[in-house]
Amino acid sequence: MSIQDGIRRVIITNVTPQVEGGKYPAKRAIGENVLIAADIFGDGHDVVAASVIFRHENDEYWSDLPMKYVSNDCWEASWTPENTGFYEYRITGWIDHFTTWKKGLVKKYDAGQDVSVEILIGVELLEEAAELVSLEKKPDFTRWISELQDSKDKDIERAISLAISDEVANAMNSIRFTDRITVYDKTFRLEVERKKAAFSSWYELFPRSASATPDTHGTFKDVAKLLPRVARMGFDTLYFPPVHPIGEMKRKGKNNSLTPSETDPGSPWAIGNRLGGHKAIHPELGTVEDFEELVSQAKELGIEIAMDIAYQCAPDHPYVKEHPQWFKWRPDGTVQYAENPPKRYEDILPFDFETEDWQNLWEELKSVIDFWIEKGVRVFRIDNPHTKAFGFWEWMIREVRKKNPEVLFLAEAFTRPRVMERLAKIGFNQSYTYFTWRNSKYEIEKYMHELTKTDQQYYFRPNFWPNTPDILPHHLAVGGENAHITRFLLAATLSSNYGLYGPVYEFGINTPHPGKEEYTDNEKYEIKHWDWNRYSRTAEIITRVNKIRKDNPALQTTWNIEFADTDNDMIMCYSKIDEASNNALLIAVNLDFYNTQGAHIKVPIEKFGIHYDQPYKVSDMLSGEKYNWQGAYNYVQLNPYEMPAHILKIEPLNTYPHGK
Amino acid sequence: MSIQDGIRRVIITNVTPQVEGGKYPAKRAIGENVLIAADIFGDGHDVVAASVIFRHENDEYWSDLPMKYVSNDCWEASWTPENTGFYEYRITGWIDHFTTWKKGLVKKYDAGQDVSVEILIGVELLEEAAELVSLEKKPDFTRWISELQDSKDKDIERAISLAISDEVANAMNSIRFTDRITVYDKTFRLEVERKKAAFSSWYELFPRSASATPDTHGTFKDVAKLLPRVARMGFDTLYFPPVHPIGEMKRKGKNNSLTPSETDPGSPWAIGNRLGGHKAIHPELGTVEDFEELVSQAKELGIEIAMDIAYQCAPDHPYVKEHPQWFKWRPDGTVQYAENPPKRYEDILPFDFETEDWQNLWEELKSVIDFWIEKGVRVFRIDNPHTKAFGFWEWMIREVRKKNPEVLFLAEAFTRPRVMERLAKIGFNQSYTYFTWRNSKYEIEKYMHELTKTDQQYYFRPNFWPNTPDILPHHLAVGGENAHITRFLLAATLSSNYGLYGPVYEFGINTPHPGKEEYTDNEKYEIKHWDWNRYSRTAEIITRVNKIRKDNPALQTTWNIEFADTDNDMIMCYSKIDEASNNALLIAVNLDFYNTQGAHIKVPIEKFGIHYDQPYKVSDMLSGEKYNWQGAYNYVQLNPYEMPAHILKIEPLNTYPHGK
Repeated sequence: MSIQDGIRRVIITNVTPQVEGGKYPAKRAIGENVLIAADIFGDGHDVVAASVIFRHENDEYWSDLPMKYVSNDCWEASWTPENTGFYEYRITGWIDHFTTWKKGLVKKYDAGQDVSVEILIGVELLEEAAELVSLEKKPDFTRWISELQDSKDKDIERAISLAISDEVANAMNSIRFTDRITVYDKTFRLEVERKKAAFSSWYELFPRSASATPDTHGTFKDVAKLLPRVARMGFDTLYFPPVHPIGEMKRKGKNNSLTPSETDPGSPWAIGNRLGGHKAIHPELGTVEDFEELVSQAKELGIEIAMDIAYQCAPDHPYVKEHPQWFKWRPDGTVQYAENPPKRYEDILPFDFETEDWQNLWEELKSVIDFWIEKGVRVFRIDNPHTKAFGFWEWMIREVRKKNPEVLFLAEAFTRPRVMERLAKIGFNQSYTYFTWRNSKYEIEKYMHELTKTDQQYYFRPNFWPNTPDILPHHLAVGGENAHITRFLLAATLSSNYGLYGPVYEFGINTPHPGKEEYTDNEKYEIKHWDWNRYSRTAEIITRVNKIRKDNPALQTTWNIEFADTDNDMIMCYSKIDEASNNALLIAVNLDFYNTQGAHIKVPIEKFGIHYDQPYKVSDMLSGEKYNWQGAYNYVQLNPYEMPAHILKIEPLNTYPHGK
Repeated sequence: MSIQDGIRRVIITNVTPQVEGGKYPAKRAIGENVLIAADIFGDGHDVVAASVIFRHENDEYWSDLPMKYVSNDCWEASWTPENTGFYEYRITGWIDHFTTWKKGLVKKYDAGQDVSVEILIGVELLEEAAELVSLEKKPDFTRWISELQDSKDKDIERAISLAISDEVANAMNSIRFTDRITVYDKTFRLEVERKKAAFSSWYELFPRSASATPDTHGTFKDVAKLLPRVARMGFDTLYFPPVHPIGEMKRKGKNNSLTPSETDPGSPWAIGNRLGGHKAIHPELGTVEDFEELVSQAKELGIEIAMDIAYQCAPDHPYVKEHPQWFKWRPDGTVQYAENPPKRYEDILPFDFETEDWQNLWEELKSVIDFWIEKGVRVFRIDNPHTKAFGFWEWMIREVRKKNPEVLFLAEAFTRPRVMERLAKIGFNQSYTYFTWRNSKYEIEKYMHELTKTDQQYYFRPNFWPNTPDILPHHLAVGGENAHITRFLLAATLSSNYGLYGPVYEFGINTPHPGKEEYTDNEKYEIKHWDWNRYSRTAEIITRVNKIRKDNPALQTTWNIEFADTDNDMIMCYSKIDEASNNALLIAVNLDFYNTQGAHIKVPIEKFGIHYDQPYKVSDMLSGEKYNWQGAYNYVQLNPYEMPAHILKIEPLNTYPHGK
């Protein structure tokens, strides 16, 4: 224990954010507020002060951010980082002798006690501080000291008003007596990512279904023609299932049948054949150059192409012959296919992550990502990451983002909570979620609490998908167009990241495979043809909401949601507020796909900074209607055949009726 | 990353118990069960296995304790440590290839698939394992391997029954493939203390009031005469306020007055005068030798003397002259007394823990403890530890317990939650609590949840006091004898550690100082005289309950409490079960001091291992009454003028009426 340790009297604990005790960074995106909190206290009754010191990894110097006392020994500070990359932060705390003295002085004076000795103690504190300040500030201290000494017997009120002045307080608060400061023994990291990590709207389509001509294999050039439509609808991310050569051995037919016809195109997730593997393009889609061209055309329209990475092989993938050591071989000399006994997936070979040659396997898998980064891709949707070694992801994502910090990875892990959490901790920037199966008000509110009010908020960034090519949830299968609209509205306003498996969603295709939560005649196994000009109420509302999302910063982060009480379990209500831009929204959704529902909602007017007798303007950005409301309780009524939600902008009216 | 790291596929996280990320040990006492849990999982669908490895600090080898899967990727293991001192524990987890294979084999066989290749895979797994086992076990493996190979084509059922046999499973489960095992990167510590840390009954009295003759200063010899009575009542810890010379300067008079009379004895917490300080005995009580004699007389009756350590000085304490540098001095040359502006406590000088001479101060304060350990004391009640530097306590307690691990420290910190938690984390073995002010069922259940179901259970060991010389809570002041009995019953059955400021409690003295939550004519400032032979219903019940506590292991730990539903908020009900001794209790308390209350209680029969149609014996150890109950819902009625509680022993009846 060093000579100073004994006199450091402040304790710091329960620092947030922290992920796995600091092993992994907390995550925020540009534009998102970072709130740092800790429990900080000293022994006895002396006043404590605290600050966060932080710096960007590229900065030489640390910034000092004073913390504010909240309650129950908890302190907070917040700032909005301006650069991507890693920040480091430390918490510091100390006994504030000057403020302690000042408070005692005032109390004693108010109680009529003689405070002349107190003033002398203040002089001592100023003298001690004066030794630490810059030359230019010294004269102030000299002046204050002599003024205190001077007025202590002659004009005690003058002495006290100087002692409690802001001028002196500011000077004293800026001094750090480093030998008495407790520095929390861990430095934590915060990873700040580009805005898209926190705010994105995904549209998924199969390029092979993009042809304007029926019964024709679509190409990247066909997709290029659809880009303006995708942009017009307000999507910023266009995601394709794998675009690589599709295995011909053990290929699956329509509806996942084991007996394909000659013309069946196979599942894009059965990757690789004699023409190439993960670094090749399926020839019927075009060439690698066509793909690069599409990426750059999309970029001009503000759309990024997201690529699907499925680390698995068809039996005819070149890896199987070139690197047999990366697969498991059975005693009969056959290669081990994927299975979940007694089910077999013979068209898919998993990699053996326990291979002795794991280092070369890891390098090769990473080189797939590097290859497509080279071709312009910056967003990867990773297929089933939970069936590959965690250590691989941690290493790969770290290495890739070290060189290209703008690259984003979306984890498609529909699995157990702890596994999904872990993938997020070790580096995935966005994650698929259980939203797909959360329907009632109770379920949704509980799930949003998990995501935004527990430690998950620091590392698990949700991306809400109402459907995927793998999942047609029951409520979409039975609830028709109204269900599609409502579930979309929820996804797009509960979470700042959301996505749709688009064509079937827009056009309300929802016939389930019998007994399954899947689409029948699934596009995974066949080529579809879409009439892109067909009118769809769903598409029209998607377009409107994507515009609202772009115009309202409050919808561009997920952490700001607060649920409001309603007196009807079919009506859910939540606020989203962005303080920096003064953008305050209240959203009400009817969860009943079939009936008009009404409810009194309790508007959290105090969060909106509105007084109980102050009217406020309420503008529904979906319908264009405007109202004046007053007080917390207001009635809403929503008809799902017209519009199942309000997205209300809340603005206090200045014409405060009774003055203030 | 070493060559193995890549193939370690298991993740371990959320290990409990852990305190401040492992900085401090978790605490348990001899006889208490230690439950270790962690979230453990791998990628994919392979079966995972896990174990805790642990050792006592004096052991050379680690023990391996297999963990069991609970749910949602959480695993648990528990054991009951047999030695005091520090244990270390680590969590390990791995993919269990053999069990994975076995499960797949059975599923495939049940589905009618050909499993001959599977059997060969099993042979490979056994061959791999055989290389790691001891010479004496090798023949078993050789036999199993040839039997599998032999029967795979001839008698597949024989092969399968061998593969799934317990014999093979046990052999395989005992093997550790160390190159594939994940070891959690932190080793945690557990401090196992003597039983008294967890189970103690304290009686507080002022020795100076122990004389049998009124108006006479009591002595240690007088106290010795009371020891048999204290033992008969069932107390194991007799705690005295400070027994040192009492300051004469600024001495306080009766009722804390600033104008004492000549004969006022002063507050024992104003420590030190010209006759000595913290290592001296107040002459009117006797000598240091008398004290030692008392300690050893008490010991013979199973009673430990707990000593009050108040690190503060009267103005005439010898330290003030000998070590002026340990105090704060004001610019007018006076020494700084304790104050909470505008209040002044001029009879008390605090130590200045920011003194440059802090190391000598710490050593001297520790030497006080060492001095009394030398005289036979092993239990210290520390006065106001929250007003002294945390760093001092951490160092002092560690140093003392390193040499004398049987020494226990009780923290008298009635302050904010984070501060109380911290004192427990840094070493205090027991802590005063908020129990004193928790009265309603809601308050008590919530507080017990905090203490026993949150992380506090790992480090904060509560000691429940219904009163202290400083605190006469409102409900005791107004509720009379019934309140005293009920609050005692709660303290003694909710918490395995409890204490009473005894004489006033037994005899129901409860006149408050006007407007305060304090006793009027407080014994802190005057000598009392007690008629120890006076009958008291309270004392009679205390005696009975202390015996019940000694006879029932379920009452000797605090962590086993589970609340049961009742349909009346005035009736609280909870179970306490000790599985090792098969000791199962159900306690019902009427919280209404004035009225008879009745309630249906929902007996948690499943926790007692009782079937819904199985009768069970219910013995009230307070009244001696016995009932036969059946099913969960039973009615209780409690009259506070008779007995406000049941302490029921629950025993399933073997005469199960319908057979099983």
